[in-house]
Amino acid sequence: MRLGIIGLGKMGGNMALRLIGKGHEVVVYDRSPEIVSSFAGRGALPSNDIADFVSKLGPRRVAWIMVPSGDPVDDTIDRLSKVMEKGDIIVDGGNSYYKDSMSRYEKLAGIGISFVDAGTSGGIWGLSEGYCIMAGGDKEAFEFIEPAVSSLAQEGGYLYTGGSGSGHYVKMIHNGIEYGLMEAYAEGFELLKRSGFELDLQKVTSLWMHGSVVRSWLLELIGSALGKDPELAGIRGYVEDSGEGRWTLIDAIEKSVPAPAIADSLFMRFRSRQDDSFAAKVLAALRNEFGGHAVKKAEDNSN
Amino acid sequence: MRLGIIGLGKMGGNMALRLIGKGHEVVVYDRSPEIVSSFAGRGALPSNDIADFVSKLGPRRVAWIMVPSGDPVDDTIDRLSKVMEKGDIIVDGGNSYYKDSMSRYEKLAGIGISFVDAGTSGGIWGLSEGYCIMAGGDKEAFEFIEPAVSSLAQEGGYLYTGGSGSGHYVKMIHNGIEYGLMEAYAEGFELLKRSGFELDLQKVTSLWMHGSVVRSWLLELIGSALGKDPELAGIRGYVEDSGEGRWTLIDAIEKSVPAPAIADSLFMRFRSRQDDSFAAKVLAALRNEFGGHAVKKAEDNSN
Repeated sequence: MRLGIIGLGKMGGNMALRLIGKGHEVVVYDRSPEIVSSFAGRGALPSNDIADFVSKLGPRRVAWIMVPSGDPVDDTIDRLSKVMEKGDIIVDGGNSYYKDSMSRYEKLAGIGISFVDAGTSGGIWGLSEGYCIMAGGDKEAFEFIEPAVSSLAQEGGYLYTGGSGSGHYVKMIHNGIEYGLMEAYAEGFELLKRSGFELDLQKVTSLWMHGSVVRSWLLELIGSALGKDPELAGIRGYVEDSGEGRWTLIDAIEKSVPAPAIADSLFMRFRSRQDDSFAAKVLAALRNEFGGHAVKKAEDNSN
Repeated sequence: MRLGIIGLGKMGGNMALRLIGKGHEVVVYDRSPEIVSSFAGRGALPSNDIADFVSKLGPRRVAWIMVPSGDPVDDTIDRLSKVMEKGDIIVDGGNSYYKDSMSRYEKLAGIGISFVDAGTSGGIWGLSEGYCIMAGGDKEAFEFIEPAVSSLAQEGGYLYTGGSGSGHYVKMIHNGIEYGLMEAYAEGFELLKRSGFELDLQKVTSLWMHGSVVRSWLLELIGSALGKDPELAGIRGYVEDSGEGRWTLIDAIEKSVPAPAIADSLFMRFRSRQDDSFAAKVLAALRNEFGGHAVKKAEDNSN
């Protein structure tokens, strides 16, 4: 089918290439004209701006947006909705907050445009292995884009999850779980590293991939990282987050569901970004106040 | 090779069968004569007591014990060491605390018996899929038993981890990670269950097995459980533990390594066993004391 992709970053770019490889006609747009040109050289149909992009789409237009969550999504939808027509479909394949997706669905429904929230997992491996796609919205719109969804996905790797918001909701929880899984491995590997035994961590990782209860794709990736740099000496332990872990915890709070492991996995990421912390200063100060325990002097005042 | 297995429970029994299937001569002993007889009918060489068991082993005797950790292991080793000879080998394939294994190694070394600590993962699937075995102790003793280890393991699924204790240490951390992984999935699935969307959790599980970042063997097992009972209505949320999670946390405390996600996964198991808790009573009482917040009356005094 013919469809368009807006946003040619790591995810959107690879998805465009996978669709082209599967025989779809893919119109592309990105803020950067250089990136658009480079994809034109790889089989995509380039466009200069949103109006040009929309004019090049098929009779029932499908615009699949792969831009950062928040304002970039709203801005892109605003610009699209000005030039798209009744019956057209906008797909948000990024990691948007599911409540935002539900509002966008309502707003677009008011002008007759369908909106599908399509959470997408698979990272940089999706291009070759196929993505895992969880899509919510009107079933009729989902079925119209299903040929593209099916080409993007690994066999068995897509699901219509139900009404608007459900795709991004399932993707949010997927990522919350991912935070917890990563933290569990991370804690275990730090203990192995400091075990006192002379363990070859890459060999342990490879061992665990064969018949053990903890085998997983994430463990395979730990093995790959250790293979390149056994001490991870070149990597600083500074961990970003991109929203889904926070939203998972907000969901847990709204529903009064205890989720301590996922909470810790998020908070340990926050802690990884602090060289020192005011909380730790308070603890050290209190131990000094009540017990006369020595405090370490701050090396400078910038913390 | 000829070797003996003591303890024919879920793990030991299946390991004996796998070894027999791979052409080894397996002498078996268990506290229960009925269980020993049933394995005799499946190709094992039965024995009546520890002395009989040892007398039926090959010239360099190998006794592989698969009994619960703690006293049963010490008791079995005591009885074996009275009838075994210099050069013989005892393998502890259970989940023993690695420091206990190091003490047992030292004690047995004093009378010339080799001791291998062989952590074994794979659960009830090991019989057909092969186990994952991490073995510590003297390399020479490991190499003597390697034909059996190799038959028990999945291809690529065994590793000589180094000196005494390292096998059980690596298995302990493996299980600590397992606790954290399980808790992360558990929290995520409770949120999905209470999402408000009409999600088919088994379909979500199956979807995530195809191309998503959270795919793993544990996730596959969640799908299997949901397939049998979509609401898990027949299962009470009461979760036991068998030591490795506790030991992982003790290790984290000894090494001053933060391991909050693994800690939570253990504590949530403890909480799952409490109908009410004194800690929660204290919290409710305090809210009443300082804020006049209503408390729920205890339904009886047994908590």
